Amino acid sequence: MPDATPPLPALPPGLLTALTAVLGPKGVVTDAADLAAWTTDWRGLYQGATPCLLRPASTSEVSATVRLLAQAGVPMVPQGGNTSMVGGAAPDESGRQVILSLTRMNRIRDVDTLDMTMTAEAGVILKSAQEAAAAAGALFPLSLGAEGSATIGGVLSTNAGGNTTVRYGNARELMLGLEVVLPDGQVFSGLRRLRKDNTGYALKHLFVGAEGSLGLITAATLRLYPPARATAVALCAVASEDAALALFRRFRDRDETAIRAFEYMSGIGMGMVRRHIEGATVPVEGEHDHYCLVDLASSRADADLHGLMESVLEDAMAAEEVLDAALARSDAQAAAIWRLREEHPEAQKRAGASVKSDVSVPVSRTPELIRRASAALRKLIPGSRPVPFGHMGDGNIHMNLAQPEDMSAAEFLARGHDIMDTVNEVVRDLDGSFSAEHGIGRLKTDMMESWRGGAELEAMRRIKSAFDPQGLMNPGKVLPS
Amino acid sequence: MPDATPPLPALPPGLLTALTAVLGPKGVVTDAADLAAWTTDWRGLYQGATPCLLRPASTSEVSATVRLLAQAGVPMVPQGGNTSMVGGAAPDESGRQVILSLTRMNRIRDVDTLDMTMTAEAGVILKSAQEAAAAAGALFPLSLGAEGSATIGGVLSTNAGGNTTVRYGNARELMLGLEVVLPDGQVFSGLRRLRKDNTGYALKHLFVGAEGSLGLITAATLRLYPPARATAVALCAVASEDAALALFRRFRDRDETAIRAFEYMSGIGMGMVRRHIEGATVPVEGEHDHYCLVDLASSRADADLHGLMESVLEDAMAAEEVLDAALARSDAQAAAIWRLREEHPEAQKRAGASVKSDVSVPVSRTPELIRRASAALRKLIPGSRPVPFGHMGDGNIHMNLAQPEDMSAAEFLARGHDIMDTVNEVVRDLDGSFSAEHGIGRLKTDMMESWRGGAELEAMRRIKSAFDPQGLMNPGKVLPS
Repeated sequence: MPDATPPLPALPPGLLTALTAVLGPKGVVTDAADLAAWTTDWRGLYQGATPCLLRPASTSEVSATVRLLAQAGVPMVPQGGNTSMVGGAAPDESGRQVILSLTRMNRIRDVDTLDMTMTAEAGVILKSAQEAAAAAGALFPLSLGAEGSATIGGVLSTNAGGNTTVRYGNARELMLGLEVVLPDGQVFSGLRRLRKDNTGYALKHLFVGAEGSLGLITAATLRLYPPARATAVALCAVASEDAALALFRRFRDRDETAIRAFEYMSGIGMGMVRRHIEGATVPVEGEHDHYCLVDLASSRADADLHGLMESVLEDAMAAEEVLDAALARSDAQAAAIWRLREEHPEAQKRAGASVKSDVSVPVSRTPELIRRASAALRKLIPGSRPVPFGHMGDGNIHMNLAQPEDMSAAEFLARGHDIMDTVNEVVRDLDGSFSAEHGIGRLKTDMMESWRGGAELEAMRRIKSAFDPQGLMNPGKVLPS
Repeated sequence: MPDATPPLPALPPGLLTALTAVLGPKGVVTDAADLAAWTTDWRGLYQGATPCLLRPASTSEVSATVRLLAQAGVPMVPQGGNTSMVGGAAPDESGRQVILSLTRMNRIRDVDTLDMTMTAEAGVILKSAQEAAAAAGALFPLSLGAEGSATIGGVLSTNAGGNTTVRYGNARELMLGLEVVLPDGQVFSGLRRLRKDNTGYALKHLFVGAEGSLGLITAATLRLYPPARATAVALCAVASEDAALALFRRFRDRDETAIRAFEYMSGIGMGMVRRHIEGATVPVEGEHDHYCLVDLASSRADADLHGLMESVLEDAMAAEEVLDAALARSDAQAAAIWRLREEHPEAQKRAGASVKSDVSVPVSRTPELIRRASAALRKLIPGSRPVPFGHMGDGNIHMNLAQPEDMSAAEFLARGHDIMDTVNEVVRDLDGSFSAEHGIGRLKTDMMESWRGGAELEAMRRIKSAFDPQGLMNPGKVLPS
């Protein structure tokens, strides 16, 4: 019986045989049923197709695979945990793009507490990397929502951020060295564990955030830190967006190294968590318009962070910036406070349709961003509910918008582009960025021209051509076509 | 009367007129007597020649100048404070390379203590940048020997390190955004002050450490920190190279954020300082083979760093790692201890000829580096005196060698290449780098092939060609010809 959908374009003759010779039968997946799970992105924004999935298990297998594909002119899409928020790891609809999954490269090659480094392969899951560091008595501080699925290769390729960026930096700052398979199959062996190494162009930095479009990260040497031995976590109701920023500045000025996270949440978002998340309790009485989560940590056991927290909060209360605050007295209480922040995406989902955003502005302008974008969104769609939350200490606010209660989800979601444009207009006016920590992927390529056009985008295109003249590495991502 | 030396090759006709129209008469220097000071590098390794020195005073003047030179096919050498240790800012002997000095671009455009950023033009002297931050109540932490002459453009173009890298990172880590004039005169306007901005390739990182070979940094947005409000400085005599590293680890494990600097000095170097530097007194009794300078700092006024220092030193003494220690009880005492470290280059100079090095290894391997390189150097030149000192906390040791007392300086200096090779052989064996913080410049281009050859150097060459196809930007630097 003939199939209703046309068959995928065939791979060049002999290629699958050659790939199977390199990767073994386990390394080459061509069964359509098996492929389905790999061709959609995590948010379900795109439904792609692929002739096959390749699963190399070592750097030399990646190198041989890329060499074969490059020689045959076959485009390839690298994939880690497939948790991209912007469709960065899914193939397009052409059915021509092969998926190159790095998940079998999942060895932690080395944990060294003398050098405070860890060398992990690209397919190591972020949580496993954290656990390996912890088992050795150290901390790998990168932490984000998808850490149970996201891989080291993925978080580096997207320069992932997360909750602790304010203290430890993005994935980039946690990277000392990289091993990369280049678009022609050559291996750049840059797994150096040096704090200082000024020997030519910063190649390693070019691959971080390049979303696999210049080469495939196969392993990385990462920085470790001593574990936190003192912590203090508080939830604060604050008087305004400006008061939230003023509170951040108070902590930063007193001890900038102690701030492990500083998160903003709106009263609307907190209300959704209260209503929709079972067991969520807000340890501050009443309902307020603005909240901050303050998380202090130090490797110094006698750092007295509770004292620091109380002292700063007292000052901020005296200045009427903080209206009320609850300081966690146990790890369980701290976890309960963090849960209020972490359940924001789930609570929004249960409250109806929502449109997400991931923008950043200079830290000083976060209050203005929240105020102006919220007002503009309410004006755009009357009855809609702005749910700004996120990493205020980095200037990175997720300016999400929940649907009006009296509008259909479909009608609301049809306004998605208008909503993003409305937020971005404010962001541009505040000298911000249209992608803070999620990257460009496929979702935002059409914004590149207007935000990064001219000399900057031209330079990026030159780099792309220099590394990948055939345009085979993750085509259609990062750069506009 | 005819001149003995042949005249310099002439610039293309009309070019000087066009440049003078852009830069004004103050911006174009062609008098041979005035040019002499600009054509030699700071260490006096090279004596170059130039047809003229150009001094643009704004970004648009730099852009117009580069455009004119590029159209005429004239090679150009960017220069800041001309303090390169590797001849990176001096023209070659051909007399064809124009010097483009950025020293007239010396405005601090903005200091912002809300965002904790400063935007400074390329020609701002590092010390002036530090002072501008301090005047605003903040800290710009980059600190190095040449800070009274080195410029912001120069420290970024070389990714300078220095004493505080262990705490604040290299120049790269202190950079948030860049403005760069590209080789065709286009301006990349990337002065963004964002902590998170994942929008395409990390162009800004490519220019840091590129030594002006991909474009000219004209301004930078830099990170500021809260000032230190608690400090503690100690000089320690330690039992061995391993004991020095063990001491570093003790501090790092207790509070990695408190270590502002951790410097190693040898007994030989300390002896030279004692002998040759007037007023230098070593506050630890007796003569020892190994010393460490520990500098702790915190923005937290009540950090009790003296308590931390004493507690760690007690543990280290009990473990017989630290033999004796002197804790500074005043700023004057702290400065006196720092002087012992800072006078190392001057003391070596007075002790006779010496050959410098700037290498790095993984932090864990610094003891082995010091031991093995010292032994190899003593074997290479009997009677020579290894004077290893520097930033042990970064794995960056200056493995300098002082001449034997019974050898002529000339005879000793003739062995310069053998000496560098001997150090580098050990460094390579320890997975280190042949240039830690000084860069490649002209001095080390011939090492690039053997250390970074293959896929890595090929990728660097591709980047160079993509940005500067005519090869006019600082030719002969960074990449081997």
